[in-house]
Amino acid sequence: MTKEFFTVTPQEEVFELIPGFKTVGKETVSLQETCGRILAEDIISGIDVPGFARATMDGYAVRAASTFGASESGPAYLTISGRVDMGCTSNINIGPGQAARIATGGMLPKGADAVVMIEHAAEFDETGLEVYKSVAPGTNIVAADEDFSGGQKVLAAGATIRPQEMGLLAAIGKTGVKVFKKPLIGIISTGDELVEIDREPSPGQIRDVNTYSLFGWTLRAGARPATYGIAEDNYEHLLEICSRALYETDMLLISGGSSVGIRDLTLEVIAALPDSKVLIHGIPVRPGKPTILAKARDKAIWGLPGQIASAMVVFDRVVAPFIGHIGGNALFSEKNYRIPAILTRNIPSVHGRTDYVRTRILEKNGLYYAEPVRGPSGLIRTMVEADGLIEIDMNTEGIEKGEQVSVIALR
Amino acid sequence: MTKEFFTVTPQEEVFELIPGFKTVGKETVSLQETCGRILAEDIISGIDVPGFARATMDGYAVRAASTFGASESGPAYLTISGRVDMGCTSNINIGPGQAARIATGGMLPKGADAVVMIEHAAEFDETGLEVYKSVAPGTNIVAADEDFSGGQKVLAAGATIRPQEMGLLAAIGKTGVKVFKKPLIGIISTGDELVEIDREPSPGQIRDVNTYSLFGWTLRAGARPATYGIAEDNYEHLLEICSRALYETDMLLISGGSSVGIRDLTLEVIAALPDSKVLIHGIPVRPGKPTILAKARDKAIWGLPGQIASAMVVFDRVVAPFIGHIGGNALFSEKNYRIPAILTRNIPSVHGRTDYVRTRILEKNGLYYAEPVRGPSGLIRTMVEADGLIEIDMNTEGIEKGEQVSVIALR
Repeated sequence: MTKEFFTVTPQEEVFELIPGFKTVGKETVSLQETCGRILAEDIISGIDVPGFARATMDGYAVRAASTFGASESGPAYLTISGRVDMGCTSNINIGPGQAARIATGGMLPKGADAVVMIEHAAEFDETGLEVYKSVAPGTNIVAADEDFSGGQKVLAAGATIRPQEMGLLAAIGKTGVKVFKKPLIGIISTGDELVEIDREPSPGQIRDVNTYSLFGWTLRAGARPATYGIAEDNYEHLLEICSRALYETDMLLISGGSSVGIRDLTLEVIAALPDSKVLIHGIPVRPGKPTILAKARDKAIWGLPGQIASAMVVFDRVVAPFIGHIGGNALFSEKNYRIPAILTRNIPSVHGRTDYVRTRILEKNGLYYAEPVRGPSGLIRTMVEADGLIEIDMNTEGIEKGEQVSVIALR
Repeated sequence: MTKEFFTVTPQEEVFELIPGFKTVGKETVSLQETCGRILAEDIISGIDVPGFARATMDGYAVRAASTFGASESGPAYLTISGRVDMGCTSNINIGPGQAARIATGGMLPKGADAVVMIEHAAEFDETGLEVYKSVAPGTNIVAADEDFSGGQKVLAAGATIRPQEMGLLAAIGKTGVKVFKKPLIGIISTGDELVEIDREPSPGQIRDVNTYSLFGWTLRAGARPATYGIAEDNYEHLLEICSRALYETDMLLISGGSSVGIRDLTLEVIAALPDSKVLIHGIPVRPGKPTILAKARDKAIWGLPGQIASAMVVFDRVVAPFIGHIGGNALFSEKNYRIPAILTRNIPSVHGRTDYVRTRILEKNGLYYAEPVRGPSGLIRTMVEADGLIEIDMNTEGIEKGEQVSVIALR
């Protein structure tokens, strides 16, 4: 065993490496399968939407000018010339002093330029209508291209498809959508102390937690996990598994190397992979300093800390943006909102290092409070009890109780 | 057509109805399938975790007392009696003045009660060790039951299983996990103006957007969608589809009834379902006022507004908590954090009604700004452009530019 001497790379510089990794391929899926997927094509609407002027209220289609000056005390008198049926073109032609019954969503008949709400009018006989309120042209209608017009770019490649984007795609008849494939992430655990989870650990052994938590984190990052089980702590076995996984997947997560010995072994194995280059050996974050990033076959290979909570924090804060990038997610980091909360006790921190403090989020009288979870990063419960992470930047030395902190929610 | 007269039920009172709907059944799934699922059993750990005292640093296992008084200038001299191998019990017994090499995660040998970090010691010959820093008992180790102890309840039924909970379940060897089934949500669109999305709409027609956006929202709520297509605007057809869907699913969403005529028809059909009872007819929210909630066969049946954006907002703000409940999610509403943002322009609002204003979220100099999206709730783009919703409560009449608002993120 030797003392550890590795140079650390600041987190911003780590993120500068992101564009160096290439995005995965594309595939076409049915609209029903797009929720949460990343769009891989710009979407140009072929049509105007809604496609025709529509009523947005139940009422009467009119020429607005026919209602000018109308009031409760001096209503305008109009003649009802018919009713607009839903889903079809009406033959009605609205002239001055005329009105047609129309329901929300109905197509505005020729000649009409506004809708009087049903609440602002009364029918006094078969065809007679009193209107109590003047409407301006365009009132209570949407124009034929008010949602979007034919030829318009309505979504850009790289956007995440949420339910509302699914609705938009439905509106323009997009039944098959080109999306980025979900990156396939290889997960390898190392450590002679690890046993498969269905085995009873002997003294000195623990179950392989990281494979399962990283499995979950990978799913949460919009990717697909491929697990490779527990690699023995020896060069040949680890190299064989890593070589295979590098060939089969888009990115590799090797976890378990918190001890200097295993870390050295992991480094040695990574260096032996074809055309590999170690880019990062240590990041000034806590937990997670002994993180390794290498590149081989144009893919990212991560040596993650073996400490349970460290591996999860590094995944969420460092690895996930890389997965976002290779998965084509153009706005990955932008939509990561932080929740301001009031710190409930002092937390120490060291200059020159970014700290991620696991924290509960409590709500009281409409304010959020951040209550740090105590315990070393080898304990799972510190992450289970955490609703979020407080980020303390490199230039801040500790934060005092009562100060406001930004919390990253862990969902 | 008649003027609309329905009594509205305040949103809090709507939520008071939630417990009246029963939760779905349970199923056992493999640990890999649990991400995002709702736990349906309390989890009691059968074992101590980690199960043995472990080193949290690379270094030397010692009796702390052997290091008392040690410093850079006056190191303690210890004798190395061996090395702890990972994953097994060591035969070493640490006496006073003795030390054993140990790596992070290694099992503390008998007699030892602390670990000296590798950085604070130096080996000066085969068995001689200088220690430069005094350690207290318990330093750099975790106790056998420090994560959790055998018999302890580590997770409660109703919790959402995140990646970290998957890790915890792995740690205690839980390969099969009892979770709540995903509620099956029936989705029915109505409206004679609607056409299937693979058809070219004629003038007056639009594609069935709501089926696809509600499909996505249902997935986002952790449930499974079952689509029933477009029901014709007539009593017999709508009743037949609703009856079948009520029998086959756990909850029904009927959307499309924004016009008074369709809303009346929807109400009539709902009333004709076996043992049905209309609980809510109108909620003072905007958009979304003409929302209907009924109960039949102990299931919730929703009449959602047909306006595209209204249906989505009502789903997110009103329907989703009901799905959370029937899906067993005990903490559904608690984890719904809001983001404070500064409003970029005045927004009007009416007393006695909760407004949900679609908004962009922009970040500038570490602050969030809420920029409301303009446009009526019949337009899809108002939801596509929205990153969140600003909630303006019933007692607030408008908010001015520059004021702070709480934004609910739309993911």
